[in-house]
Amino acid sequence: MVTIFSSNDANNPKQAALDMLNEAVEAGYDRVLESHKKTWDKMWEHYDIKVEGNLRDMTLTRFNLYHNIIHTPTHAYLPIGARGLSCQAYQGAAFWDQEIFNLPMYLYTQPEIARNILVYRHKTIDGARAKAKNLGYRGAFYAWISGKTGEELCPSFFFKDILTGRKIRNHFNDWQIHVSSDIAYTIWRYYEVTGDMDFLVEYGTEMMLDISLFLMTRSFYNVDKRRYEFIRLLGPDEYHENVDNNVFTNYQARYTLKKTLEVYSMMKESYPDKLDALLDKLEISQDNLKTFQDMIDRMYIKEPGADLIIEQFDNYFDLEDIDPKSLSERLIDKAEYWGWPNGIAVHTQVLKQADLIQLFVMHDDFSREVLKANYDYYEPRTEHGSSLSPAMYSIIASKIGYEDQAYEYFIKSCTVDLYNANKAISGGTFIGGIHTASCGAVWQMIVFGFAGFNESDNVLHFNPKLPKDWDSFEFKVHHRNNYLDITVSRDMMEVTSLSGNTEALELDVCGDKRTVAPGESISFKL
Amino acid sequence: MVTIFSSNDANNPKQAALDMLNEAVEAGYDRVLESHKKTWDKMWEHYDIKVEGNLRDMTLTRFNLYHNIIHTPTHAYLPIGARGLSCQAYQGAAFWDQEIFNLPMYLYTQPEIARNILVYRHKTIDGARAKAKNLGYRGAFYAWISGKTGEELCPSFFFKDILTGRKIRNHFNDWQIHVSSDIAYTIWRYYEVTGDMDFLVEYGTEMMLDISLFLMTRSFYNVDKRRYEFIRLLGPDEYHENVDNNVFTNYQARYTLKKTLEVYSMMKESYPDKLDALLDKLEISQDNLKTFQDMIDRMYIKEPGADLIIEQFDNYFDLEDIDPKSLSERLIDKAEYWGWPNGIAVHTQVLKQADLIQLFVMHDDFSREVLKANYDYYEPRTEHGSSLSPAMYSIIASKIGYEDQAYEYFIKSCTVDLYNANKAISGGTFIGGIHTASCGAVWQMIVFGFAGFNESDNVLHFNPKLPKDWDSFEFKVHHRNNYLDITVSRDMMEVTSLSGNTEALELDVCGDKRTVAPGESISFKL
Repeated sequence: MVTIFSSNDANNPKQAALDMLNEAVEAGYDRVLESHKKTWDKMWEHYDIKVEGNLRDMTLTRFNLYHNIIHTPTHAYLPIGARGLSCQAYQGAAFWDQEIFNLPMYLYTQPEIARNILVYRHKTIDGARAKAKNLGYRGAFYAWISGKTGEELCPSFFFKDILTGRKIRNHFNDWQIHVSSDIAYTIWRYYEVTGDMDFLVEYGTEMMLDISLFLMTRSFYNVDKRRYEFIRLLGPDEYHENVDNNVFTNYQARYTLKKTLEVYSMMKESYPDKLDALLDKLEISQDNLKTFQDMIDRMYIKEPGADLIIEQFDNYFDLEDIDPKSLSERLIDKAEYWGWPNGIAVHTQVLKQADLIQLFVMHDDFSREVLKANYDYYEPRTEHGSSLSPAMYSIIASKIGYEDQAYEYFIKSCTVDLYNANKAISGGTFIGGIHTASCGAVWQMIVFGFAGFNESDNVLHFNPKLPKDWDSFEFKVHHRNNYLDITVSRDMMEVTSLSGNTEALELDVCGDKRTVAPGESISFKL
Repeated sequence: MVTIFSSNDANNPKQAALDMLNEAVEAGYDRVLESHKKTWDKMWEHYDIKVEGNLRDMTLTRFNLYHNIIHTPTHAYLPIGARGLSCQAYQGAAFWDQEIFNLPMYLYTQPEIARNILVYRHKTIDGARAKAKNLGYRGAFYAWISGKTGEELCPSFFFKDILTGRKIRNHFNDWQIHVSSDIAYTIWRYYEVTGDMDFLVEYGTEMMLDISLFLMTRSFYNVDKRRYEFIRLLGPDEYHENVDNNVFTNYQARYTLKKTLEVYSMMKESYPDKLDALLDKLEISQDNLKTFQDMIDRMYIKEPGADLIIEQFDNYFDLEDIDPKSLSERLIDKAEYWGWPNGIAVHTQVLKQADLIQLFVMHDDFSREVLKANYDYYEPRTEHGSSLSPAMYSIIASKIGYEDQAYEYFIKSCTVDLYNANKAISGGTFIGGIHTASCGAVWQMIVFGFAGFNESDNVLHFNPKLPKDWDSFEFKVHHRNNYLDITVSRDMMEVTSLSGNTEALELDVCGDKRTVAPGESISFKL
């Protein structure tokens, strides 16, 4: 019997370890095993996705779900390490992966854990403030690599030019500003799904206001074009540093500002004193709030062109158009980094990972035609140099009816670690280990992708597409603490509202709109 | 006998060449030689600087003056090639060197040639407009490399990374915006010295308005800090691309806007119809003009710190502090480019060339203490990788009483070509040939530096320091067509107002203020 405690877990970790060890020894092996099993059974009750008819895919799914579970700290406000428990790379620190890849599974199955993850961001807001201040901004600029304190752990010189041996001044730490907006976005999504106003009062409002303040001080107003711009960015596609008006970044910023003002109104209505205290504390003036609104009205966000394609950032279309495979022939050394400052992808349209496609997963505001046009354009240009990429392509492929591609990308994403498919070293930096983002993404690929799930205005929408080689899959989701058990088979989708539920839920399955009452089971023909 | 004409010189160059050849043959060798001598005697009357007591320095001076004369087109509106007549590098095209290094000699000795040079910029304004438009701006963004049409001739991939063989995407062509301001600055200086209002009406106002319009559209307003900023620049110090608020650039921009509004007022007073026609043509609204004023009021220009040192651009002081010699030991190959994107100087404070020091030469708004503090700081950090650099250090060294350094930099600048001191190849690009900027700078080092000449409010100031090994030096300057012949010897400065002058001129020699009437000679004790 072994017990492990660190100073993260108890004030006196040695004593805590000994106490628990004594308890365990006293209880004996059988009872400890029994308790362990019970704990896991309970967890699988929430998180499991049962894939019937394909043992391999069931295994792949559970492997990834399992890792998403074990790398998420639930007993303390700690980051989800981007390489989980398996590896020292990234030193147990969190990236935006935490909110955008790991958290959604919890949000829809065990929201108190999603809350826990977001409270971690509140506990570390002083680190984000310090980062903003160091760079000449106000508010909260969350770290690209966030540890226990939230201070930026990403070194300025991240990769190495392996051709010359010189260090590279990457700008993950100062130009990748979407991380802050991604956290604000998730706070709002958490509130939408849970209705947890207490969280907003206690934590969320402060974070959203401080993130919006940061965005305001990071933006510039273009006097001639009468619009706000974000200049010198690094978007999700990390092969292109130093770009302007990356659509993902600007869109997320505007969303953040919008939702911040919504939260502001709610707080003004219900908690005016707490709101005033926050505005005082954060030194946010009425003028600043007016600027937030002005930024919402005048944010520059590139629109789809006549061909419905959206340019990923300013002048992206002017870059050389080449496919990743042909481009790879220009490598001098296979281990060199493709990106900044002068890697082979920098002056080309080749993407490291989903960028606009990532945005489409996060926002249901784009038509199927826009999704399709952009998938067709960006997919062949994507190198998938990040393990975050395939899952996003799988989800959008599902949404536009590219079922084969949806499934291929599903398998690619699920096997990143099992097949050891991603490079362990890039630009001289070790980045191997379990890819927790793609672990978390398995839940999204199945629920958002294959089941076509999303919610808006308290309606739960589904548009299921069962993969060819599967007989069925089953999973749980909740809305405001009313849990549904859902099984998708070839011709049918069955929904059971658990008996402990308190409210009926509105469903829309491929346009068939119905309500399911607590304890009720209903079927939709597909 | 040989005659040479190109299509720049005549519509039918062959015929023109034959005609002149026939004339010359008819006149015969002796008369052609005589005419040649007369032409040169006349030229030397304007431009010569007689250095007595040091034959070598007299030779160095005349070598550089001679080249500044021969590479300046006077019969057509053509660029001054940055490598003169001696070399194909830069293909006979002009840089900002033309206005800031070559032109001042003409401005004070033969202003009609300075005018000619500036008219070239007006003839090529459509190229500058095309460049602005291509990059998403309005107005006139003058080329970094400007040929006959003014379109940008600088390729996007200028240097090569000789360690990897990959081309480098340098940003001389899109981020080095001070070129436009430098032209506007020179237009105004030309007007100050000559009072040539016709030039402003015909050419200058249009260029200044269109340059200011460009600057407006290139700037950003920082809503939080309530100031205008220039982001992503390449200042005179070309080892640092992608910098913000380079003081030289912002200062020159503000000066341009100020002087544009002064010219605007003069035009409104005296030529309101022509002004209105220009505003119409350039699509400059009253709102735009208000923004020009707002930019003057709120331009971000970094101030001297407690130690009087001005930070060259945002966060320059955060860069590694190392001297150029120690830094050079990091070179992997002696021929590699030190700058962007990952050369040895990029992440250090090492400058390619005078940057703030260049600004001090061009503006007399800084105290001697500020000059000294910044000279002491920046001089040891300057690598002089550009032939434009030593002359500027020589002039400021003269101004702050560093006589030895002023002389050393004078010699260094004068011998760039005679000693073949500069690299002929950088980053795989051939940049050899006569360095016309340093040729033009010899006049400035002696007149602005050793004679301490500058003018303000129609007063000609002198503060002479005769170099140790010289007995005297003699040169000419004019103000509004009243020419002075000036001789500086050890204890005396003699000023003769030429007999053809029409007005008395006010002088201030080391604080001794006197007036010199046409035809009069006066002496100042030093």
